[in-house]
Amino acid sequence: MVAPVLQKAVREVLKSLSPGSTMVAADLGCSSGPNTLLVISEVMSTIGAYVQETADDSRAMEVQFFLNDLPGNDFNLVFRSLEPQLRSSLFAAEEEKAVPAPCYITGLPGSMYTRIFPCQSVHLFDSSHCLIWRSKVPEDELVSGGRMVLTFAGRKRGEMPMHGGVARVWELLSEALRHLVQEGRIEKKKLRSFNMPYYAPSLDEVTQLIKHNDLFDLEDIKLFESIWDAHDDSDGDVVIDCSSSAESIAKIIRAGIEPLIVNHFGKDILDELFMVYVSILAKDLEKGKAMCPVIVVMLKKSKH
Amino acid sequence: MVAPVLQKAVREVLKSLSPGSTMVAADLGCSSGPNTLLVISEVMSTIGAYVQETADDSRAMEVQFFLNDLPGNDFNLVFRSLEPQLRSSLFAAEEEKAVPAPCYITGLPGSMYTRIFPCQSVHLFDSSHCLIWRSKVPEDELVSGGRMVLTFAGRKRGEMPMHGGVARVWELLSEALRHLVQEGRIEKKKLRSFNMPYYAPSLDEVTQLIKHNDLFDLEDIKLFESIWDAHDDSDGDVVIDCSSSAESIAKIIRAGIEPLIVNHFGKDILDELFMVYVSILAKDLEKGKAMCPVIVVMLKKSKH
Repeated sequence: MVAPVLQKAVREVLKSLSPGSTMVAADLGCSSGPNTLLVISEVMSTIGAYVQETADDSRAMEVQFFLNDLPGNDFNLVFRSLEPQLRSSLFAAEEEKAVPAPCYITGLPGSMYTRIFPCQSVHLFDSSHCLIWRSKVPEDELVSGGRMVLTFAGRKRGEMPMHGGVARVWELLSEALRHLVQEGRIEKKKLRSFNMPYYAPSLDEVTQLIKHNDLFDLEDIKLFESIWDAHDDSDGDVVIDCSSSAESIAKIIRAGIEPLIVNHFGKDILDELFMVYVSILAKDLEKGKAMCPVIVVMLKKSKH
Repeated sequence: MVAPVLQKAVREVLKSLSPGSTMVAADLGCSSGPNTLLVISEVMSTIGAYVQETADDSRAMEVQFFLNDLPGNDFNLVFRSLEPQLRSSLFAAEEEKAVPAPCYITGLPGSMYTRIFPCQSVHLFDSSHCLIWRSKVPEDELVSGGRMVLTFAGRKRGEMPMHGGVARVWELLSEALRHLVQEGRIEKKKLRSFNMPYYAPSLDEVTQLIKHNDLFDLEDIKLFESIWDAHDDSDGDVVIDCSSSAESIAKIIRAGIEPLIVNHFGKDILDELFMVYVSILAKDLEKGKAMCPVIVVMLKKSKH
């Protein structure tokens, strides 16, 4: 559901570039797992298709791609997966019809809370489920007319802020925390002072914010339902293996908020908390699959 | 001895930039040791001094710095040393008189045998003792008028190719290899087919090559004598602790050629070879310190 929006953004950028120029793209919060290179792969195959359609060789261009994450990210792992023999499999599809453009991949360590690029140096930003941690959009770094594709959890029209697919998994986590309070493993007042800096906006809220902000034109916005457990590709609403599904959802949640938990409650309770969480989640999944409404927006930096 | 040449190159680049632009610099073969960030530090303090001298605030600029090495390099280590608290100590000198320009540091994995930058995107290349592995100068990647500072081992005027400071350490390594042949650890014909792809040119040879090549103007060239054992800062020509000096030189040599040795002789003989090498080297150091003639050149990409 995100891919068509990203493809559209790449095409818009390509149209705006003068022949022979370099397209600069960046993935904010790239992490170091099997999905890290998906965005590059998507961008490159879109360029391939575009070049073929337009049959315009004079547009021979190059792509400089920045993979950004915190300095503690395992960039070594990412870079090793770029070694020639592996790289060719990444670009296998393009290899067949000749690589559409040379792609130079770099690693950019740094917090998105700070400036990480020179002024007006990037044509395309992509950020998937990471923007919740960013307080400031990277508008200075984007060229005028450049595109941003942002993907984040949202809530469906008519749902209250603390209801719906995202709220459900957080509600169950707070249940697990309350359980640890009852067991005397967490102090009651510790729990009371814990605040999850998380808000799942609706399409309308996002649309209004962007219009109000005036820095970007909203070119596309979509909400779709994504299943929390990405390993579950069964049809229907029934979860076939609740405990394995619970384990896989708990991993996603833990990857996202472990630092917050450790910072507030200490790391001693981590394993216990997530064990309790998995069992509460597994029981809840008997009611049906856990879905998360996801919003994807495509923004264009206004020319003023 | 390299620093003044690098400073001069940075100044030339700064002069050529239009106000408010971004300077793109790259260190080819940055490795991941304590020296990795020295080049960035030198570039940034030169910019600081330049900005102060010219007192030209309209030149407010940014620096994008690419650290390049093979994908197997420990970039995680490098990136962690860039975390805010450490970074500020790196730029301590500039911190006092305010940082001269925002510096965005990225990691660029890739072999220098391939293209690693978009066309005409770099203003300054620096490469210290790594260019011996490169078959092709990165002329395409350099902007017209851009600068390259290259540092590599050379030989003094009047010395024969296989004599002098560089040849001495290789000659002793070949002695160690011959010792292993005598011990039956290496086959005689294996040694005979081993070829060290290493050549220490003289100033005249380098100068002629550059003039003949016609892609670059030679703006500066110097030869100086550097001591192989960088830990030895004693005066005079006598080595005070021959075995510790031999150990430290052997480490440098091993870091440089271990892959070649492993590739040709297998890795089983590695430790033994370097143990023998250290003892031969220690004995040889009784004659006096091992010095290496080093050449540093500053090139400007011709405008045609």
